[in-house]
Order: sequence, then structure tokens, then C-alpha cells
Amino acid sequence: MTHPLPTSPLRFQPPDGCQRLRLTVAWDGAPYAGWQAQANAPSVQDTLHAAFARLGPAPFRPVAAGRTDAGVHAEAMPVHVDLPADFRVPPARLARALNAWLPPTVAVLDAAPAPPGFHARFSCLERRYVYRLWCAPQRHPLWAGRALHVPQPLDMAAMNAAAQALTGTHDFAAFATQEDRQTVRELRALTVVPGPGANGDGIWAIHVHGESFLRHMVRGLVGTLLLAGQGKLDPAGVAAILRSRQRAQAGANVAPDGLYFAGALYPGDPASTT
Amino acid sequence: MTHPLPTSPLRFQPPDGCQRLRLTVAWDGAPYAGWQAQANAPSVQDTLHAAFARLGPAPFRPVAAGRTDAGVHAEAMPVHVDLPADFRVPPARLARALNAWLPPTVAVLDAAPAPPGFHARFSCLERRYVYRLWCAPQRHPLWAGRALHVPQPLDMAAMNAAAQALTGTHDFAAFATQEDRQTVRELRALTVVPGPGANGDGIWAIHVHGESFLRHMVRGLVGTLLLAGQGKLDPAGVAAILRSRQRAQAGANVAPDGLYFAGALYPGDPASTT
Repeated sequence: MTHPLPTSPLRFQPPDGCQRLRLTVAWDGAPYAGWQAQANAPSVQDTLHAAFARLGPAPFRPVAAGRTDAGVHAEAMPVHVDLPADFRVPPARLARALNAWLPPTVAVLDAAPAPPGFHARFSCLERRYVYRLWCAPQRHPLWAGRALHVPQPLDMAAMNAAAQALTGTHDFAAFATQEDRQTVRELRALTVVPGPGANGDGIWAIHVHGESFLRHMVRGLVGTLLLAGQGKLDPAGVAAILRSRQRAQAGANVAPDGLYFAGALYPGDPASTT
Repeated sequence: MTHPLPTSPLRFQPPDGCQRLRLTVAWDGAPYAGWQAQANAPSVQDTLHAAFARLGPAPFRPVAAGRTDAGVHAEAMPVHVDLPADFRVPPARLARALNAWLPPTVAVLDAAPAPPGFHARFSCLERRYVYRLWCAPQRHPLWAGRALHVPQPLDMAAMNAAAQALTGTHDFAAFATQEDRQTVRELRALTVVPGPGANGDGIWAIHVHGESFLRHMVRGLVGTLLLAGQGKLDPAGVAAILRSRQRAQAGANVAPDGLYFAGALYPGDPASTT
């Protein structure tokens, strides 16, 4: 194991002489190859690190609750960063100071000293995604790059029935791409609801909650729910896909630009209703 | 009067030999100088007209329920267009055909023969706008250009109390810019609500309904509600602004990019809950 987990999720310490801060970061995924720093492509991690470097010495890269694929958006990504104890911008002024240097596509929503032992990735108890669909015959310019356009009618009840068969602890090998970790995961919630908007208006949201996810798993789950919504898959078919452990059996990965990292929970956080 | 209104709102006829169609059009306002055709700036009207011209002879410009300012978005703008009776694309295929020629920032959501006597502007019984606020200390990249960022705390109850004092039939001269029409209007609804999203998340929506609005009136109403939300104005102050009929007394016009034309109602339409 590359990252042995301590017994408690709050047993991670910053490097000597550093203060660990917890941030919430949001971004428009369009211009980025994802969170993770890349050699030849813009990443949110590098963009954020560069903004820190404008304010003072920032020897360590920030760490996020999860990696995200290229093009995926973040509404509220927990991030930690370790700064020298004498970093000249105090936490209370840090979000504003960073946002002055960050491009319009990234912002720090808040920043505060992290609880003792906090680690944005290893302390995380639950990650929450939302995938947005624009369900209407024609595309909508205000949802371009923000939701997947689904022109054919979808049966929401059938999607939720299929989702029920996916929820719980399963081997999700059939929903993973290039994954070298073990493939059993607990999918805590998978629900399709209308909205935002008083009456849905054609926008649907698929909420996906779990402690952790395999590579591309969320996009494969959504692609599989689309098959159910089109009448091509029922709950028994979903169970057969899980049993097969074959990626080719599940629905295709949907486009990343409908996917949002919506939030994450840590020990001591107030439980969110997102 | 430039446009004498007939007694019934459904007494407008297309030119001889033409069929009138009713469309619903949506756009991202960022690249446009507004709906109305302009000599030296891109307009949605010209963009849509040009798409029609790719499909066949389209002698008349399309007509919308309302003009919009530069930068204002439209979620669902009713539009009519008069086409030669033998226009080669039938209404049922028109939305898709137009969207193939329109840029990503404009789309026709649907198209159908207009009811007899229909006129997108003169038959309209109610126009509905929504103004979005991102209420949080820091900007949010996914709301950039889509909502006004309000970093200071706002009192939603005070905003709704002020809104109550504006609702109804009043002389709105204090909320008009360069207006040469009479200035009495009926403001049917003005409400501030959290959302979209299960718990609001910092996004608020201001719903504004009326038969018609003065130039820049919606943006001036929102600017005035912001003063109320900041504790600088109470309902008595709002009444004084209305009585003054002086534009300088009301709040500043807020930025156009938080404003959306949300929809409009016509005789025979099912009443919407938007």
C-alpha cells in the first residue's frame, strides 16, 4: 500500500514549522486538465499553488479531497495546504488575497486553520458529486458545457430503480477504467431528481455519494443510468453488469462537463443536505 | 401612439402569403448587444434572422416578447417570425435546423405555428425575469457572468419587505432610464428566494413579473432591493422613492449579466409557476 491509513482519520500532521490550512475551492473545469498537476497541461493544483507563491514562500503543493478528470467542475472542493508559520497573509485574509491572483475560472471560497490531524484526502469520510442533464429536444446555450444534453425522453423512475440496484457495497470493477486499487466500494446514494428550478424545467441532477470512487466510476454510473432511462436496462440487468466485472458491460462514460464535485464531509463537519 | 393596440391581444395578422410561427429562444447574453438589431454590434435578432436565411427566404426580422439590454440572458424568450407559406423547412423540423446554424450562445428550444392573431410583443400578457445573486464573501467561478456577486451580508426579509412596497400599480418614473412612454406600470410580483439548490448555497433569485417594464426598470428594482438588504432603505423609504419620480433616488442599476428573461405568458397559455 502506498498510503497506509492511520486508525483515526484525524492523525495527519503538517511538516515541521508549518501551519495546515483547510480551504474550499471552486472552479470551472473547462480550461483545466483536472485538479492534479500535469507536466504539459494546466491544472487547478498548479494554478492554486502559483497564486500562493505570489503571496509568499509556499514550499508544498495543495492537496485536494479528490482528483477530478479534465473538464470536471468543482462547486466546493476541500483542499489543505501547508504554509510556513510566518506566512505573511493570515488565514482570515487569505481567500481574498488568493482570489486577486487566481484567474476567473478558479476561486477560494474560504480558508481557515485546519483541525488538528486533518488531511484533505485521507481524512475525508464522504465525497459528493452531482451530474447535470439538460433533458429537452434542443440544446440550451445557458447549459452548454455545464450539463449533458439528452435529446431523447428519459424515464426518471426507471433510472432511480436502476440506481437502487447500484447503491450499497459492491465490486464496481465494471465501472472502473485503468484502476489498480481493489474495486469494492460503498455507493451511499445515487438518486435522480428534477431541478434546480421550481419545476425542473428540463434540468435534472444525479446525486452520487460515497467514501471514495474508482477512476471514471461516477461517469460510468451516470452512463449506465442513461441506458436505464432509455428503457435499455432494468435492475436485473444492472445486477448482471455488477456481477460481470467487465467494463464493456456498463454504460459509456458520460462527458466530464456535466460533472461537478459538489462537496465532501470530514469528522466533526455538520452533515450537509447537498 | 406608434403602435395602436387592438382590443383583443390576439388580433395581429402576418403579412399576406406568410405563415406566422411562435418560437422559444434561449441565449447566453455575454456576446450580444441585446435582442434588438444594432448597426455596429452583434444582436440576437440578427443572429437568429441570419440562421433563418440559411434555410430559405426570410424577408422579415423575428419579433420578441421584449427587448433586452446588452449582456442580459434569456432562458425562454417567445419570438414570432413570418415565413413564406412554402418555406422549405416545416415547423416540426425548424428548431433543429436552425440550431445547426446558430452559434453555441443561441438556440431555438421549440417552434410551432402561432395561434391565430398572435404577436410575440403585442399579445404578451406577462413578462417574467429572474435576477440571480451570489451572496458569499468570495466570488464563485461557476457563477461568473451568471449572477451578481454580493460580498456583504444581505437581509432577505428586509428585501422582501421593500419588494412588497414596490409591488402593485405605481408610477415607476424613479426606476426608468431615458424613457419616453408613460411610466405607470403594474408590478405583479417581486420576491427574493433562496436557490436554485436544496439549501440555497448562497445563490438567491429575485423574481420580477409584470405585463411590461420601463427601460432598465428591472435592474433598478434589484439595485433598490440591494439597498434594503444592506439596511439602507426600509419600506417607507421605498414609498418615498416612488413618490419622488427621480431616478437618482432609487438604487443603481445592477449589472446586466445577473439578469435572465425567464418567460412570458399569452392568452391560452397554461399558467406557469416559474
